[in-house]
Amino acid sequence: MAASSTLPVVVPALLLLLASAFAPATAASPSKRPTHQPLLFPVGLAPLHQKQWSGRYATAAVTASAAAATDNGTANPFTAHYFLQELDHFTFTPNSSHVFSQKYLLNDTFWRRKPTAGPLFVYTGNEGEIEWFTTNTGFMFDIAPEFGALLVFIEHRFYGESMPFGDGPYSSPDTLGYLTSTQALADFAVLITSLKQNLSAVDAPVVVFGGSYGGMLAAWFRLKYPHVAMGAVASSAPILQFDDITPWSSFYDAVSQDFKSESPNCFSVIKAVWDVLDDRGFNHTGLLELSKTFRACKTVQSADSLSNWLWNAFTYTAMVDYPTPANFMMNLPAYPVKEMCKIIDSFPAGADVVDKAFAAASLYYNYTGDQKCFQVEGDDDPHDLDGWGWQACTEMVMPMTVSNESMFPPDSFNYENMSEDCLLYYGVRPRMHWITTEYGGHKIDKVLKKFGSNIIFSNGMRDPWSRGGVLKNISSSIIALVTEKGAHHLDLRSATKDDPDWVVEQRRQEVEIIRGWIDQYNKDIEQMWQ
Amino acid sequence: MAASSTLPVVVPALLLLLASAFAPATAASPSKRPTHQPLLFPVGLAPLHQKQWSGRYATAAVTASAAAATDNGTANPFTAHYFLQELDHFTFTPNSSHVFSQKYLLNDTFWRRKPTAGPLFVYTGNEGEIEWFTTNTGFMFDIAPEFGALLVFIEHRFYGESMPFGDGPYSSPDTLGYLTSTQALADFAVLITSLKQNLSAVDAPVVVFGGSYGGMLAAWFRLKYPHVAMGAVASSAPILQFDDITPWSSFYDAVSQDFKSESPNCFSVIKAVWDVLDDRGFNHTGLLELSKTFRACKTVQSADSLSNWLWNAFTYTAMVDYPTPANFMMNLPAYPVKEMCKIIDSFPAGADVVDKAFAAASLYYNYTGDQKCFQVEGDDDPHDLDGWGWQACTEMVMPMTVSNESMFPPDSFNYENMSEDCLLYYGVRPRMHWITTEYGGHKIDKVLKKFGSNIIFSNGMRDPWSRGGVLKNISSSIIALVTEKGAHHLDLRSATKDDPDWVVEQRRQEVEIIRGWIDQYNKDIEQMWQ
Repeated sequence: MAASSTLPVVVPALLLLLASAFAPATAASPSKRPTHQPLLFPVGLAPLHQKQWSGRYATAAVTASAAAATDNGTANPFTAHYFLQELDHFTFTPNSSHVFSQKYLLNDTFWRRKPTAGPLFVYTGNEGEIEWFTTNTGFMFDIAPEFGALLVFIEHRFYGESMPFGDGPYSSPDTLGYLTSTQALADFAVLITSLKQNLSAVDAPVVVFGGSYGGMLAAWFRLKYPHVAMGAVASSAPILQFDDITPWSSFYDAVSQDFKSESPNCFSVIKAVWDVLDDRGFNHTGLLELSKTFRACKTVQSADSLSNWLWNAFTYTAMVDYPTPANFMMNLPAYPVKEMCKIIDSFPAGADVVDKAFAAASLYYNYTGDQKCFQVEGDDDPHDLDGWGWQACTEMVMPMTVSNESMFPPDSFNYENMSEDCLLYYGVRPRMHWITTEYGGHKIDKVLKKFGSNIIFSNGMRDPWSRGGVLKNISSSIIALVTEKGAHHLDLRSATKDDPDWVVEQRRQEVEIIRGWIDQYNKDIEQMWQ
Repeated sequence: MAASSTLPVVVPALLLLLASAFAPATAASPSKRPTHQPLLFPVGLAPLHQKQWSGRYATAAVTASAAAATDNGTANPFTAHYFLQELDHFTFTPNSSHVFSQKYLLNDTFWRRKPTAGPLFVYTGNEGEIEWFTTNTGFMFDIAPEFGALLVFIEHRFYGESMPFGDGPYSSPDTLGYLTSTQALADFAVLITSLKQNLSAVDAPVVVFGGSYGGMLAAWFRLKYPHVAMGAVASSAPILQFDDITPWSSFYDAVSQDFKSESPNCFSVIKAVWDVLDDRGFNHTGLLELSKTFRACKTVQSADSLSNWLWNAFTYTAMVDYPTPANFMMNLPAYPVKEMCKIIDSFPAGADVVDKAFAAASLYYNYTGDQKCFQVEGDDDPHDLDGWGWQACTEMVMPMTVSNESMFPPDSFNYENMSEDCLLYYGVRPRMHWITTEYGGHKIDKVLKKFGSNIIFSNGMRDPWSRGGVLKNISSSIIALVTEKGAHHLDLRSATKDDPDWVVEQRRQEVEIIRGWIDQYNKDIEQMWQ
């Protein structure tokens, strides 16, 4: 395959900074919320007026259907509440005092109120409906009883129901301009502080939890608001995926490595499919043929859509390569990468690579077998880009390239092009280096060696986002818990009877560390009253 | 004296959160900058349309003339530079990318560039022209040679020349809304990061320095941006003067204590003067008489103005009760509180208390003897309130009361009244508890015991602001350096031949601690390259 600059390369959800909040275009159930139609915005070089989007720095959407599922099938009850939040914490302009209802969920089943109030375990919501994260963070429910913890899940502004200007879609910087991570962190601080006062629990310790972008927020929250949260569990939080801290090709190299480790043949088949698709999809006849092969509900308009569809399947499957059956992104069996590769390897050697790749991808999109055809090309409503797409085009600039060694078509990254695309699409230019200016990241081991405390960075190395995470202990209380076989915030999921020992052990360590934080905190508070 | 609610009590500059940036109304030289006319906004209950201002939470202005002086009379050269700064770091609204020129001063005389770059010593500018702080922070110049340090003094947005919307005055939340401490800290982060890149000194350590509000900013900057500054010297920084962390009456109790400690008679005379002024100034004849006694350039309209004038003299003199002659607020002799009390005590016992108080206050306003009359009532232009007055009415809510035990007329503080006043005057309501939500403060010893490092909180107990400062070590590297006889950020002033041993020792300790930070930092950096 030729150099990326000449290719209509599909670099789809990759960019979708945080795939955790992403559901691909096809197999989605009907969304209850119009702003959460699942969408893909693939296609590197396709014109933006076609409502496609240059994948490297695009985009995410959450299916409401996913929010309905729980991660181990059991019901984890919560009640919904709303907090009047100010629009802009950092100015006093006339708009700043506009208020909106920020949603949060509570579960006080396990909360110990006496003799001293049990901790608040707070999920710092990321880019999607809070129910979705709540039902996929069973770990918090699992450990709440032994800590006597109150569970709080706060929805991130501009997602779910927490829409500052009423029901969307929003498409203008006038409204979306207030969707930033710093405002979200301040929302959390204000809400938690107010909640503790209302509960007469100002002295109760607060531990924040988050996965993916939510994990980044949890870690940053502990660093920026140590007086509000005394500890943070940041799972699969790629806080080092910015600037040049992590090599730009590492994400797709990691995806590729996941497949190669299961089967070199599987890797080679996938690596070969992209050129074939490009060749065959060059004219209408070819696209018709391919549409049949891919069981597309409608004839596809571009081979890029097919590449993108495959690309997402492989990438997300690597992310959610869990050791047990799970339904986070999609309903999938245990170790789905291995299963995909089994499918590819089961074909006769001479079979068509496109057939092989399609069959493998079908595991992702149709494991349950209920899809009669696939919506290969996404929804037409560009406003579904609201949310993560906006964040990726403003603050969350995570440069990614695709190396020659990966199983994907090579691709480069260019700040100027990205900036122009964002200006065209959203009317805004990214602040390319803002995240590292605001939160740091460069030389993090030196900076935090004697600054900060009580953070767990957990990662599983099967998850390509792990490469942008903190993988080594920074100090005695800023700890990296890494598992070789874990995937995207696996540790935050509910325990199941089939969990392998290494994830049981990872969660046990987390509980032990959190208990250490809380014991120390309570000792300090006791001293205060003596 | 009756309860404060019935009194037109003058509680003047007290409120002016940070008197360091305050110059009273009278003895000022002509300002070069129209926005820097010295002004007082006294008078508790006077109608706001009279362009007076409820003192408890008002206001500060800096004289340009002060900026021309240096704190030990020697020239400390610097060059002026301008940085294009974005208006709003925390949103991407259309206004956010508006840029303005932020002024900063450089002195590279002492900067060592090889073999490794010497540190950057950065002053985090507070509420006034940056030249004024630069020339009153001789300590940085004094210690730069031994550290091979580059000196940088950054002007705070909306002060001096760093006016985002061109020359003021500004009076509307549309413009002033962007004047917040969080934006100012982000300005510092962006500017320092950019400057280091431009100087090819990204690995050079940065230590921030600040006094008063600038000291608060320095401490908060280290806490929020540890990846930008590896240490902070926060002198006379009352970061605990918020909410109910510090008793509300402590500031004026401390002022009173300064006078009482010099002479109980002095304290009693001042305590007695307020009722007398109120009684005599009740009618026009009385005001005429008093205007003569006070050598007012114009007949005063209200006894409050006279009370306010005295109040400021006593309060600011307590703040700048330096052990050597100095010209920070005003030209004053060494230990000016003692000198004031000597004046009062030198009167015959039966002399008029007003005469005594006036004579004492004249030390403050006219030590050099060149004032023929006094501008007791301030400038009429309400727009001079821009700046600190705005900050005090938005974020910087430092409740203060005056106790019965103080030498001032008792006064209370009421959040609701303040909020209404701010709404009337600025069209904005304060966020009463925002500072502690954003920066903490409650239980700071517990919160920072194992979080954060490399901060010096220095205070002198003669300075009434010391009561809201950090007066005890929090950890082995968050250190409180307290002197019994020091005044408002005395340690940041140039060394003089007459400095008492205790301030020499305080500065020596600071140098030793800073050297420890930098040595450790350089070791860490060296390891990185090994």
